[in-house]
Amino acid sequence: MDSSPTPDDPLLQARRTAEAMFDDDRASRALGITVASIAPGRATARMRVTAAMVNGHAIAHGGYIFLLADTAFALACNTHGVTVAGAAEIVFVQPARERDDLIAEAVERVRFGRNGLYDVTVRRGDGAVIAEFRGHSRQLQTRQG
Amino acid sequence: MDSSPTPDDPLLQARRTAEAMFDDDRASRALGITVASIAPGRATARMRVTAAMVNGHAIAHGGYIFLLADTAFALACNTHGVTVAGAAEIVFVQPARERDDLIAEAVERVRFGRNGLYDVTVRRGDGAVIAEFRGHSRQLQTRQG
Amino acid sequence: MDSSPTPDDPLLQARRTAEAMFDDDRASRALGITVASIAPGRATARMRVTAAMVNGHAIAHGGYIFLLADTAFALACNTHGVTVAGAAEIVFVQPARERDDLIAEAVERVRFGRNGLYDVTVRRGDGAVIAEFRGHSRQLQTRQG
Amino acid sequence: MDSSPTPDDPLLQARRTAEAMFDDDRASRALGITVASIAPGRATARMRVTAAMVNGHAIAHGGYIFLLADTAFALACNTHGVTVAGAAEIVFVQPARERDDLIAEAVERVRFGRNGLYDVTVRRGDGAVIAEFRGHSRQLQTRQG
Repeated sequence: MDSSPTPDDPLLQARRTAEAMFDDDRASRALGITVASIAPGRATARMRVTAAMVNGHAIAHGGYIFLLADTAFALACNTHGVTVAGAAEIVFVQPARERDDLIAEAVERVRFGRNGLYDVTVRRGDGAVIAEFRGHSRQLQTRQG
Repeated sequence: MDSSPTPDDPLLQARRTAEAMFDDDRASRALGITVASIAPGRATARMRVTAAMVNGHAIAHGGYIFLLADTAFALACNTHGVTVAGAAEIVFVQPARERDDLIAEAVERVRFGRNGLYDVTVRRGDGAVIAEFRGHSRQLQTRQG
Repeated sequence: MDSSPTPDDPLLQARRTAEAMFDDDRASRALGITVASIAPGRATARMRVTAAMVNGHAIAHGGYIFLLADTAFALACNTHGVTVAGAAEIVFVQPARERDDLIAEAVERVRFGRNGLYDVTVRRGDGAVIAEFRGHSRQLQTRQG
Repeated sequence: MDSSPTPDDPLLQARRTAEAMFDDDRASRALGITVASIAPGRATARMRVTAAMVNGHAIAHGGYIFLLADTAFALACNTHGVTVAGAAEIVFVQPARERDDLIAEAVERVRFGRNGLYDVTVRRGDGAVIAEFRGHSRQLQTRQG
């Protein structure tokens, strides 16, 4: 009982805000993206590369790699209240292939004023880096608990 | 007859290389992306925002905006031979909504050595800017005609 | 007389705001940077690469190329009122050398809300591209004429 | 004696390559930039903001913040042999002021083929973040010991 989270437990609140966003994100769920973990300023999301995401050589379209990273970024920055993605950069390190299980781990780098900067690394199941993403967020409203 | 393109007509060759790439790009075609125009160093692609691309508020996932821009970029840089996207940056100017017809216009900014830099503007049908994208390409092999 | 600018002539106002900023910019002036032209959303600045800006092989430090581009960007975005640089990307196309006369031309790409995006190309006197820069601005206050 | 580095000690080699680059970098040294530490894939550089680096409000020109970050980046990536900066992004978190002692810490994020990606955080002496920089390097030749 003592260990049960209080109404303003930061971890619980972070999860609630991010999960509300994800429940609303039909696009990510339609692609089979799942949330692996959420904590304040952090989130991990997974996606399997399907036949619909690849070209004739079974290499994933870079847009889907970006999409997975962007979803993890949105989950992480929404743990601080309602935020929007203003901009992002991505570096494609190596191709992903059909049936690869990809894991995108988003970590807050810095927050200042209503702005935030998040680094997302997309890895294959065996740990090999597929892409490095950096997202710029902007908070729309403060969280009211 | 005189006006028929010769085997090494640059416009024809650009189209052939880019179209071969697009034929191979099942991911883009599965999303209903179509090619509107191709010329050396330039390409325009279209996509309608579908229900599968949006969240519960009918706003398109940024990942799909990126994907459209990335496809136009790939078409434009492949007019110079087989190239790969090494990195990209995107700025989200305003949200796109379900049923919006989006047009991504990619224009080569500079090429140097085997590298290229392309600017892509994503617009709604009425001309309003949705996103600005900049892609970094790297040529894998020279075109041999 | 009819052609004399009125107090709220946009070109005149753009110049005044940007020139006030530049007069204040001791850092840029100390490097010998000069303003070649200013118009709403546009500016051109020049800099000669000096011995203090290069390494032992007489190649300019990339930081000085960035600095020139950043100055042209600041001039261009300040034609719309007091703005600050929030972020920037630069691609180094080829090295500049001691005694090269560099010209940075900044052009507004898009403005939305209080945000702006500017493209700056840095060229050598002979027109060769040295760097491509993209700056993200944010307006602090609206101009009150 | 046993602990003395062997000729191919990686730490020693990293230092030698980076220090050779820095000795050659007259531009950085002319600004009073000093190297605080070097290890394979990592480097820390310091710079005091001088009167020549600021505007009339004693706020440092963003170009000098970039220059310091770029120098730390160059030191870090040159620990792997001769590399060049191909591109970089910077986010300005808060202004630096005259007489601030700035510390730029560069850390390798990923290397792939001849490419590398480095994150550089610029902090004030009290630890406050001034800027976040990400640099893209490309190796020109392999190190031959």
